[in-house]
Amino acid sequence: MFPDVLAADAALIQSFLDAELADRADQPVIHAMRYALQGGKRLRGFLVMEGARLHGLAPEVSVIAAAAIEAMHAYSLIHDDLPCMDDDDLRRGQPTVHVKWDEATAVLAGDALQTLAFELLSREALGPAERRVALLGSMARAAGAGGMVLGQALDIAAETAAVPLTLDQITELQAGKTGALIRWSAEAGAHLAGADPSALGRYATALGLAFQIADDILDVEGDAEKAGKRLQKDAHAGKATFVSILGLEGARARARALVEQAEAALAGYGDGAERLRQAARFVIARDS
Amino acid sequence: MFPDVLAADAALIQSFLDAELADRADQPVIHAMRYALQGGKRLRGFLVMEGARLHGLAPEVSVIAAAAIEAMHAYSLIHDDLPCMDDDDLRRGQPTVHVKWDEATAVLAGDALQTLAFELLSREALGPAERRVALLGSMARAAGAGGMVLGQALDIAAETAAVPLTLDQITELQAGKTGALIRWSAEAGAHLAGADPSALGRYATALGLAFQIADDILDVEGDAEKAGKRLQKDAHAGKATFVSILGLEGARARARALVEQAEAALAGYGDGAERLRQAARFVIARDS
Repeated sequence: MFPDVLAADAALIQSFLDAELADRADQPVIHAMRYALQGGKRLRGFLVMEGARLHGLAPEVSVIAAAAIEAMHAYSLIHDDLPCMDDDDLRRGQPTVHVKWDEATAVLAGDALQTLAFELLSREALGPAERRVALLGSMARAAGAGGMVLGQALDIAAETAAVPLTLDQITELQAGKTGALIRWSAEAGAHLAGADPSALGRYATALGLAFQIADDILDVEGDAEKAGKRLQKDAHAGKATFVSILGLEGARARARALVEQAEAALAGYGDGAERLRQAARFVIARDS
Repeated sequence: MFPDVLAADAALIQSFLDAELADRADQPVIHAMRYALQGGKRLRGFLVMEGARLHGLAPEVSVIAAAAIEAMHAYSLIHDDLPCMDDDDLRRGQPTVHVKWDEATAVLAGDALQTLAFELLSREALGPAERRVALLGSMARAAGAGGMVLGQALDIAAETAAVPLTLDQITELQAGKTGALIRWSAEAGAHLAGADPSALGRYATALGLAFQIADDILDVEGDAEKAGKRLQKDAHAGKATFVSILGLEGARARARALVEQAEAALAGYGDGAERLRQAARFVIARDS
């Protein structure tokens, strides 16, 4: 079962992060960082580790990059959940960081988790300096004001826009907001091995979009308890989503087509990429 | 005059940052990043460029690292000024980012400026990959939850502490909050040149503490208009500072002694380090 595969990698990543944050100062900001690094599907970390396996890298090496992307993801969730952003009180079935502590601690814990992501990617154990610095640079380009932060800014602008976004605009927004880091994750293993990342890049571009369409479908018809967060927020806010534009059936069909594209992009890897194919199918079948 | 030297480097850094942020998306988050990167003394950027000159590096190279530390510094100021943190409405004589835009834009602009700092340090033009990755790693260690963010968290904790901090505790707090990035700045040129950074490190440790003591003195007896920010906030909040513990004269004497220590650390560099010595004297003589 694919969820078991995901859980095995998630356990490796969790152990690494737990060890990383042990023996730190006894301060709320450190406790909040640990808290925000618990749970989640670890899809991004899995993509790193599986892409790395495909290129012959050991899990002890790739887990460092997997932990880095999960730290980056955790930072983005803490800041997205802030009252001035999406104002969410529930995440992964638990109170969000600013609810459990306070806003100042949430801002600082997010800030420090972003820093931690870059620190981890600088570690010697990840391999030759050229490859580490390439990975650092591509993570920065994916996360910054040309990638994830720009997508987040477009998302906030959309909330107060007079005219709902078009399909092209939502696609562009999501390519930044969730797509850029998913693509980085899938390509990281190839970069670490000094191999061509373009097939994994095509896989990840289709996968990232399918992931977001599935998120929009979950927001409409998912079970809030399983999802671990509040749902139907977009519909209540009157925001355009893939579902509001394509309809529920149209969105499902689009997501299925994207999963087929993602699988097709892996053809050159043969059977070795079966778990990445399973991941693509899982992304649109998940309930959380 | 030393301020002219500082202004010349500041102009180089500003040009670089302006070019870097030209041709970006026409979004509030990008405008806010540009805004936050205007003005300031650029002391950290100067330390990078002067440390680099001392080791024979060209300004076209060192300006990239100087811009990176100024982006990192600008991020920390935007987030520090947020209502949930220090709640400041004035910075460098202008409205703070969350006042001019809103809190969401301030959080995102700060996030993206941190990312930009790491992106800049990954650039090939900075030199061999080994040195770039070493610089990236040391910046991350200086900025994260063992450095600047920890200092900021200790500072917030101090505001609600039942007992005022001791001199040792304030010294530890400042070593993280402002000291870590000042030290990184002074050492960066040696790292980039593959030289021993330890003399510059000793210089910066004394300089950073002198800088913070001077800040505490300015907070008590400075001119808010020249400083470009609200003063006497610490005294009103009843917070322990170097001045509240050592007294005004004691604080001045301590700052002077630290400047002598900083100058002495540069003895091995001879006359070449004169501008770094001037910087140390300037740090306790400035009015903003």
